[in-house]
Amino acid sequence: MAEEINRRIVLAARPVGAPRESDFRLEQVPRPEAEIGQMVCRTIWLSLDPYMRGRMSDAPSYAPSVALGAVMVGGTVGQVVESRLSGYAAGDYVLGHGGWQEYWTSDGRGVRKLDPTAAPLSTALGVLGMPGMTAFVGLRVIGQPKPGETLVVAAASGAVGSVVGQIAKQSGCRAVGIAGGPEKCRHVVEALGFDACVDHRAGNFAQALRDACPKGIDIYFENVGGKVFETVFPLLNPFARIPVCGLIAHYNATTPPPGPDTLPRVMRAVLTKRLTFRGFLVFDFKELEPEFLTEVGAWVRDGRVRYREDIVEGLENAPGGLIGLLEGRNFGSRP
Amino acid sequence: MAEEINRRIVLAARPVGAPRESDFRLEQVPRPEAEIGQMVCRTIWLSLDPYMRGRMSDAPSYAPSVALGAVMVGGTVGQVVESRLSGYAAGDYVLGHGGWQEYWTSDGRGVRKLDPTAAPLSTALGVLGMPGMTAFVGLRVIGQPKPGETLVVAAASGAVGSVVGQIAKQSGCRAVGIAGGPEKCRHVVEALGFDACVDHRAGNFAQALRDACPKGIDIYFENVGGKVFETVFPLLNPFARIPVCGLIAHYNATTPPPGPDTLPRVMRAVLTKRLTFRGFLVFDFKELEPEFLTEVGAWVRDGRVRYREDIVEGLENAPGGLIGLLEGRNFGSRP
Repeated sequence: MAEEINRRIVLAARPVGAPRESDFRLEQVPRPEAEIGQMVCRTIWLSLDPYMRGRMSDAPSYAPSVALGAVMVGGTVGQVVESRLSGYAAGDYVLGHGGWQEYWTSDGRGVRKLDPTAAPLSTALGVLGMPGMTAFVGLRVIGQPKPGETLVVAAASGAVGSVVGQIAKQSGCRAVGIAGGPEKCRHVVEALGFDACVDHRAGNFAQALRDACPKGIDIYFENVGGKVFETVFPLLNPFARIPVCGLIAHYNATTPPPGPDTLPRVMRAVLTKRLTFRGFLVFDFKELEPEFLTEVGAWVRDGRVRYREDIVEGLENAPGGLIGLLEGRNFGSRP
Repeated sequence: MAEEINRRIVLAARPVGAPRESDFRLEQVPRPEAEIGQMVCRTIWLSLDPYMRGRMSDAPSYAPSVALGAVMVGGTVGQVVESRLSGYAAGDYVLGHGGWQEYWTSDGRGVRKLDPTAAPLSTALGVLGMPGMTAFVGLRVIGQPKPGETLVVAAASGAVGSVVGQIAKQSGCRAVGIAGGPEKCRHVVEALGFDACVDHRAGNFAQALRDACPKGIDIYFENVGGKVFETVFPLLNPFARIPVCGLIAHYNATTPPPGPDTLPRVMRAVLTKRLTFRGFLVFDFKELEPEFLTEVGAWVRDGRVRYREDIVEGLENAPGGLIGLLEGRNFGSRP
């Protein structure tokens, strides 16, 4: 058994600005074996997500950085190949945090079993996994959508944004997406059922967003920041809620942007429009997981919530997949 | 009766930057008489508050501007001098919005009677009025103080700030004030019972605030903005709540401040620290008034919440009182 190889990708260098292929290194090491109380899982699916950019830096954040030389972190769907852990047997499917490698050990903490007949295994990393739950939590806890309100979400074709808009539709909202390019926008409206989707790369972006939100914006699900936020900002209605779950436009920034300082203008609107900005991490709301799996699981099964996965074949292509994701070249975040 | 004079102060010009005496004009007109369904009240106390600066501008805000030539708005305690309104009789004391004038008419809307034996009449404009309720609502709805947490409030000797810190103490928090000058700081600690008060005019402000908040800041009650916010910002703990009820440092600003743009840094902290910024206006929470009057009224009567009123004698001195308030020269906001 020990002659088996574990291929893994480690952080070779901390990126300055956008990550490059040379910031990653593919290594081959012996496949781990299970000690008592452990199991070994073989990775079937690895999730690539924007938050991974943050883990590559050593700036203080909500989670520790990946050490130089350590395996990149990431959610994984795996199959147990060897178990010395009670409750798990070879052949079981599990969701865990194996990271960017072919084999990983686990003592069962933070792992849950998956039923491969209930939903495709890959959905445990997407619409029924962390991205879908991020959408669910942000709306349930902060966004609080009400019938007749207008919700806007950027990266609307992505793993989180696509679920945000579809849940908002279930709550009776007008769902307006923002995405990059006509192909993504078409997908968001035609396949996902958003009421409208605006191309932030088009020259008329601001006007098109205004036109798509004739009654202003009540919920802006913030996952990008930057120019999109600036365009959304003047359209926010009194009492608008802004769940902040990501700022992908800023992740690669190396210096503060030049002036003028726009913070006072935003704070003034927070006051006069009684806005709520609230950051959240899905990990802080574990207690909502059963409700999420029940509600969104049912919507996925009956087709009310649809999803699309971007698949990159081969572990060696994961760095390119993440780089592309951060540049907006992917549809979703499932390699 | 009609020969009686009503002295009133009208908005003569829209200020550019800080208001000046010449932006106001004292007028004398005949005293109004009550029509059927009205009463006439004589002003006993007029409240001067920072929000009045906003009403002098014609920039869009949560409330309409005062028109040029119109009487300046403001909360007032009055005594009924003539009533053709059922439920009110000459001699009754009332809280209303008479504005900057000696006599005002009312049809009873937005007015409530005051019991002069329950608490000093002036408190209806301060600790038991809009400023006190602003403190109560901001903490109850957004701040949600928990025992052992640290609360920071600026303008801590002011009408709102002084109540914020004292309510937080009742909730078991460490209350840290920020005020301008050693005299105010001494008052905040010695008379109001805050755990500490830091002088934002002193050279060691940032270090002194850090020292006063050894466990960071869980609630920052925002009523000033500007330099104070910048100093508070790095001390905010994960899950900190920032009720935003005023931005007095910005009210006189005429141009956006120069760069760099600090918004991305703040948004990044909103995300990574899961901060909540929420603007609120006390008028949106009328339903909490009975609870406020009961709870804070009891604390005022038994001395657990103390207050100090700055009194300016004479309507003709109201403009100077407001100008001084905006410059931080007053303790509170009761002229």
